[in-house]
Amino acid sequence: MTDLNDIGRRAKAASMELGALSAVIRNSALKHIADALVENAGAILAANAKDLENAAAAGMSPSLMDRLRLTEARISGISDGIRQVMGLEDPLGEIASMKTRPNGLRIGAKRVPLGVIGIIYEARPNVTPDASVLCLKSGNAVILRGGKEAINSNIALVKTMQDALSNLSLNPDMIQLIEDTSRETAREMMRLNRYIDVLIPRGGAGLIRTVVETASVPVIETGTGNCHVYVDKSADLNMAVDILYNAKCSRPSVCNAAESLLVHRDVAEAFLPLAKKRLDEKNVEIRGCGRTRELIPDVVPATEEDYFTEYGDYILSVKVVDSLDEAIGHINHYNTKHSEAIVTSDYFSAQKFLDLVDAAAVYVNASTRFTDGYEFGFGAEIGISTQKLHARGPMGLRELTTVKYVVYGDGQIRE
Amino acid sequence: MTDLNDIGRRAKAASMELGALSAVIRNSALKHIADALVENAGAILAANAKDLENAAAAGMSPSLMDRLRLTEARISGISDGIRQVMGLEDPLGEIASMKTRPNGLRIGAKRVPLGVIGIIYEARPNVTPDASVLCLKSGNAVILRGGKEAINSNIALVKTMQDALSNLSLNPDMIQLIEDTSRETAREMMRLNRYIDVLIPRGGAGLIRTVVETASVPVIETGTGNCHVYVDKSADLNMAVDILYNAKCSRPSVCNAAESLLVHRDVAEAFLPLAKKRLDEKNVEIRGCGRTRELIPDVVPATEEDYFTEYGDYILSVKVVDSLDEAIGHINHYNTKHSEAIVTSDYFSAQKFLDLVDAAAVYVNASTRFTDGYEFGFGAEIGISTQKLHARGPMGLRELTTVKYVVYGDGQIRE
Repeated sequence: MTDLNDIGRRAKAASMELGALSAVIRNSALKHIADALVENAGAILAANAKDLENAAAAGMSPSLMDRLRLTEARISGISDGIRQVMGLEDPLGEIASMKTRPNGLRIGAKRVPLGVIGIIYEARPNVTPDASVLCLKSGNAVILRGGKEAINSNIALVKTMQDALSNLSLNPDMIQLIEDTSRETAREMMRLNRYIDVLIPRGGAGLIRTVVETASVPVIETGTGNCHVYVDKSADLNMAVDILYNAKCSRPSVCNAAESLLVHRDVAEAFLPLAKKRLDEKNVEIRGCGRTRELIPDVVPATEEDYFTEYGDYILSVKVVDSLDEAIGHINHYNTKHSEAIVTSDYFSAQKFLDLVDAAAVYVNASTRFTDGYEFGFGAEIGISTQKLHARGPMGLRELTTVKYVVYGDGQIRE
Repeated sequence: MTDLNDIGRRAKAASMELGALSAVIRNSALKHIADALVENAGAILAANAKDLENAAAAGMSPSLMDRLRLTEARISGISDGIRQVMGLEDPLGEIASMKTRPNGLRIGAKRVPLGVIGIIYEARPNVTPDASVLCLKSGNAVILRGGKEAINSNIALVKTMQDALSNLSLNPDMIQLIEDTSRETAREMMRLNRYIDVLIPRGGAGLIRTVVETASVPVIETGTGNCHVYVDKSADLNMAVDILYNAKCSRPSVCNAAESLLVHRDVAEAFLPLAKKRLDEKNVEIRGCGRTRELIPDVVPATEEDYFTEYGDYILSVKVVDSLDEAIGHINHYNTKHSEAIVTSDYFSAQKFLDLVDAAAVYVNASTRFTDGYEFGFGAEIGISTQKLHARGPMGLRELTTVKYVVYGDGQIRE
């Protein structure tokens, strides 16, 4: 059985070394990793081929196979991504302000790494280098636990990164992989509070739920997105069609895609046929309320369950609402606190929607698809938080840090 | 059995109303609560008398009885504290900066309430109003679960606060108490993810551990403090004695009190007798390493367990170390990441200690006792976080908030 305490202890020790490295050294580590991945592509692709072979034998679906697959071009893309992360501003060390208290103590909050970050993910081997370099850049050691389907790829990727660290005389324990992909070991990892400071699950709703329910290590919940587009009575209907189509169809499998459309009753008769015509381009299946079914053809009746569902596919639930308030109430009841959009020309409707909808990102007259670390200008993304603690929405390098209060005194004691 | 889902649903609804209230209204609610507590002191004290009677019958210790006791003066003090919270800056609504992306989207992070906060605590009834008003001021609904020893007091306090809200035509569900103090109900509360956004336990190490291990709701771990004072070889020894005495003896039961002394070997012979003499004023029991026992009398041998222990009492573990590095290594191994101090005259030692010690607050030449929301200038404190996620160290009003990205567009769709 894997000794997680040993992995944890080594990660903690490595995190102490890593936290003390300058940005120059951390960036140098990233550069060596980026180079090593390309140089070692042969071995990585050979390992990936084994995973693909096993997956094919196990009857994995083509879309999952595609996520599992690495190619020369994909490795080169990962390597380019690492060079971009090198160029991002160092998130560490800043003391945004230092204040002097009446007793002369000078107190500042210094930005420091979280320490040891655990990443639990599924069968996408690209997460292995992507997450590792974001942790490294932000001064954190990382313990990776990927899906068993990608284990050979992950072993090859991690070995490549560890060798690159060793070649720089850095501690290779800064990046560690749990090679035992049993559920018991994953469960143990989720409760390794002594060594892991934060756990970030990346994957489907089932994985996220398991981690949230099992972990005693603090978790950042990521990913699930039951996102809505609400078309207000004052909406520019052509703009609304464009936004809806983009939010639903530009990449239906991702978490910031729209799953549900709400339409004000005053414009439903005009808007729904326009929307239907556009969505037909991608054969989007519509599941709607009674009023929707009166206004457009080929609508499956929507169940309560539909309104809670993140389809991740060319399916859209639709409801006609009587008011903006009903739309806001519906969204706050059914959503996953990810991304929500209103299309409106009315100032007060826009402000009310922004104020009252509870989500990580709330949009006026734009597609929900923009909720993303790159689109938000963070330059990188480790995931999208749908919880409220620590980080909300796209998480960049800064969200992989915390603060430490540094206090300069000259003998102060408390009364 | 208590219907926690009902309590949760009502709290979530109340939090939506509360989040939309202006600071003027929230402060008015605080004022009415402050007034009502004083006006209703008779009923509150009568309820508290019942708790005290039950506690005495159950053989509660005098120090715990003292924590449970309310008096006219204490209620008046709570009321004064609420008026101070009224005067604090509103933490809500600020968008620190709004940036325009190349595509014209304007994106800002607006500070908003967390939503519904759960507080789990023990037999201190003062936590009931203290925590409630901090939640209210920061726009959060609160669900309280106090210890069974204080249940009559808590019912009277919460009824008083709810009546004050009702008198202002505000939803009394903004503050709710779980009257069923069974462990099963507490456990259910800790897993009420659908309605509770954040759980903050306040109490002893056992309670905190239970909550961390049981909860699936995100937790902010507070409280435990195994704090060290390290006396460097370059220390001003008189300053070191003052700081040590203050850190250990000014209030030994609190989490920012020192539990352990580390002394550099070069000054151990000079420092330890001075320290011993001063600590004898309070009859502090010393548990030390072999070298400590050679240098001062009446020292119990320290065990490995001692170095891990938060005594909360007039007991101090002591170890003579060979170097600053050994001190830092010892602290990072045994501490609870709360507060750590070095006494030194050496610039490089000070910087190294600040950089490498892993704790919420790291001090140079000052007592660990300053780790406190009031001393840090936050004006209030809901607890002291010893985890790294979301908040670290003293938590004021700002730490009871999160952000929501608000995005203003004019029809943007993603490529």
